[in-house]
Amino acid sequence: MNVPTAATRGIAVDLATIRAAHARIAPQIHRTPVMTSRSLDEAAGATLFFKCENLQKVAAFKARGACNAVLSLSVAEAARGVVTHSSGNHGAALAWAASLRGIPAWIVMPANAAAVKQNAVRGLGGTVRFCEPTVAAREAQCAAVQAETGATLIHPYNDWRVIAGQGTAALELLAEIPQLDAVIVPVGGGGLLSGTSIAAKALKPPIQVYGAEPAGADDAAQSLRLGRIVPQLDPRTIADGLRSSLGDKTFAVISSRVDGIGTASEEAIVRAMRLTWEKLKLVIEPSAALPLAVLLERNLPVAGLRVGVILTGGNVDLDRLPWQT
Amino acid sequence: MNVPTAATRGIAVDLATIRAAHARIAPQIHRTPVMTSRSLDEAAGATLFFKCENLQKVAAFKARGACNAVLSLSVAEAARGVVTHSSGNHGAALAWAASLRGIPAWIVMPANAAAVKQNAVRGLGGTVRFCEPTVAAREAQCAAVQAETGATLIHPYNDWRVIAGQGTAALELLAEIPQLDAVIVPVGGGGLLSGTSIAAKALKPPIQVYGAEPAGADDAAQSLRLGRIVPQLDPRTIADGLRSSLGDKTFAVISSRVDGIGTASEEAIVRAMRLTWEKLKLVIEPSAALPLAVLLERNLPVAGLRVGVILTGGNVDLDRLPWQT
Repeated sequence: MNVPTAATRGIAVDLATIRAAHARIAPQIHRTPVMTSRSLDEAAGATLFFKCENLQKVAAFKARGACNAVLSLSVAEAARGVVTHSSGNHGAALAWAASLRGIPAWIVMPANAAAVKQNAVRGLGGTVRFCEPTVAAREAQCAAVQAETGATLIHPYNDWRVIAGQGTAALELLAEIPQLDAVIVPVGGGGLLSGTSIAAKALKPPIQVYGAEPAGADDAAQSLRLGRIVPQLDPRTIADGLRSSLGDKTFAVISSRVDGIGTASEEAIVRAMRLTWEKLKLVIEPSAALPLAVLLERNLPVAGLRVGVILTGGNVDLDRLPWQT
Repeated sequence: MNVPTAATRGIAVDLATIRAAHARIAPQIHRTPVMTSRSLDEAAGATLFFKCENLQKVAAFKARGACNAVLSLSVAEAARGVVTHSSGNHGAALAWAASLRGIPAWIVMPANAAAVKQNAVRGLGGTVRFCEPTVAAREAQCAAVQAETGATLIHPYNDWRVIAGQGTAALELLAEIPQLDAVIVPVGGGGLLSGTSIAAKALKPPIQVYGAEPAGADDAAQSLRLGRIVPQLDPRTIADGLRSSLGDKTFAVISSRVDGIGTASEEAIVRAMRLTWEKLKLVIEPSAALPLAVLLERNLPVAGLRVGVILTGGNVDLDRLPWQT
């Protein structure tokens, strides 16, 4: 019998939950490859293993969590559809996951969201609902859709089903590269970091698990330092997937399981993104460059170690690359 | 006993040669992944399987042929080194392959070759020798290096060891996706198309094998039509890997084994390259986009078929993308 401790109390995801999520979503998702590059190892001062979630469905690990959440719904719940607020990869992932079950998905996004993002959701069969660009407005709009339709809210990260789904990437990574000493993933709202830390620490207790975030949006580092959620009020970063604040669930997991958060300058993020394109020949978005960016700046204690990195996504505007002025 | 026919006379590579090449080079090269995309299938009107040689060593299939050639040399030959003329992927591949055996490699390129290409060769341990930008000058410079050093010339494509090495990509592709109806690869000098057609037709006689080349450098299509090598005197294409003429060896193979050559406009090449970046999240160079470009323009009779495509390379200047003016 497991006695709940301070470290596990209230945390509803464990290795078994993540394994169940993997069994549930495996037929729908790609088992993405793991890539290596000697020149990136030299640049980072460590031996890196890149899990290519930019090659995942909808080009982002978000497919995992959204798929697990949608496939976990009862038939009655599913019939009423799902709703979320996201102008980014979670919105597209939820629309995609809903289409697998043939159920409706409402994606709330600010009226000023890029047309390409609106069209991505619509192309996947989702319905876009607009709101003002504030947290209060998007929550009100989600609540309105729920009241109107009975749809289930699938939060982008502060949801145990989503966290369990995101943890499946680390499950695959450690199955393929069991010799890892550490894993580093980007942290925005903390869903991926939560799932990764639960999976990795359970599979291999001595492994180190770190988050990587922009210095211009370092709310997770501040939250860990102060022992409470510090909201991200004024994010200043090109990494548009990492501007969110932690939620109560992700904060509980991260503060009990993660070994630290490294930050990176905007200059390092752009350099890491470009290096990944050049050396791995992979298109990644700025947010996906954070772990390498932190390593380029030597901001985590992993020198010489075998480090797993999750390349979180590849959705980027090819007309406006950040190294072009 | 095999009696030589018109189709095999003088052709020194067969399936056994390619299998031997694969055994020789497999420890040094990547077994590259095969990727798919429903939206690219829709755009192409066929079911596509992309063999990702942009993720190969030196980011090009050329690593295969160069490696096979270098590893095929006797100890005495190898000690004197290798020489070739190439300002592109074959030069880098030969420098890389030579470094595996710790032997010298001289790469002849025009004095106006991009600094990034010169540095790539030097970074791999090769020695750059300059020449005037004419066929006569580069051959004279190669001959001078041979006379001076005793190095073995490894031609970029008109060499049986190179052709056998390039054929190993199709070997892997058909082992992974045996249900293919057709294979399409870019054709410049014809080394890859030669190796591919020998491997694919031997493994699966009914398979269709096609080349894809720029309409602005359609010497292979003209050569097949006229039954003799038509030299490429004035190539006008962004696909810098496909400006060469066929050689006598590659012409002999291609004219006896290939089902046709499709051409693509420059506009389709750029569109196919960008689509590949967007949908597969892979960085490919313009030359690698030719098969998809030909399919976008419906210039080969493969509608509805299962088609293997080799994404030949990923070396491109990230500061100057062809869809940006």
